[in-house]
Amino acid sequence: MRHDVQPNALLATIAWNDAGLVPCIAQQHDTGEILMMAWMNRDAVLETLATRRVCYYSRSRKGLWRKGETSGQQQHLVALRLDCDGDALLALVDQHGVACHTGRRSCFSWEARDDTWSEIDAPRVDPATLYGA
Amino acid sequence: MRHDVQPNALLATIAWNDAGLVPCIAQQHDTGEILMMAWMNRDAVLETLATRRVCYYSRSRKGLWRKGETSGQQQHLVALRLDCDGDALLALVDQHGVACHTGRRSCFSWEARDDTWSEIDAPRVDPATLYGA
Repeated sequence: MRHDVQPNALLATIAWNDAGLVPCIAQQHDTGEILMMAWMNRDAVLETLATRRVCYYSRSRKGLWRKGETSGQQQHLVALRLDCDGDALLALVDQHGVACHTGRRSCFSWEARDDTWSEIDAPRVDPATLYGA
Repeated sequence: MRHDVQPNALLATIAWNDAGLVPCIAQQHDTGEILMMAWMNRDAVLETLATRRVCYYSRSRKGLWRKGETSGQQQHLVALRLDCDGDALLALVDQHGVACHTGRRSCFSWEARDDTWSEIDAPRVDPATLYGA
């Protein structure tokens, strides 16, 4: 744990929603790929800054979600950015392996083409390999 | 208006939140810059697909927000993507001028450095020029 982070001023600037969350976009720092979007609460932001490993808040599990804890597909933080009205975060990360639970590199792997969402990237890893059969 | 878009199947796949909205990330299609994040409702998605000009839903003004309508800083849609659980959109766009109402190219222009959000990009246009004095 780093002890030189003084996060209170950082947290106070964030415009949390009514549930105490803020959306966070994860972008691969060197290629520019958008990997995923998820949510953070105060503890997730603090832990991410302190450990430099990205930690989200899982709305379905109602708890901290240390990305890659189960799958091994961790995200290492390169930089954390905030937008002009304070209600969205951008995490520049170094993604180990794939970001998506489907085994795809990016969660944004479907594109609107006429009247359907067309798959634009196939799984690179079998999810059973990531999460156990 | 394009009449070959059959959007109902597209809309039905989106996991709208309780307010009938979905977050949308805007990324410059060629450079990979993350420009902004805003929200869309059903009409905003339909209009964006039909006109190929990005239209959001303004939560503060409670109405459609045709990006660039006032400022001239329009976003032209290159592709619209959906994530694996259907609750976030990624718009690849061609941004005319700056995306941020502060005159900065990107809304994500503050970076966490120790205990402060440091400005990492300066305004390129005076907002008074964009919106009138």
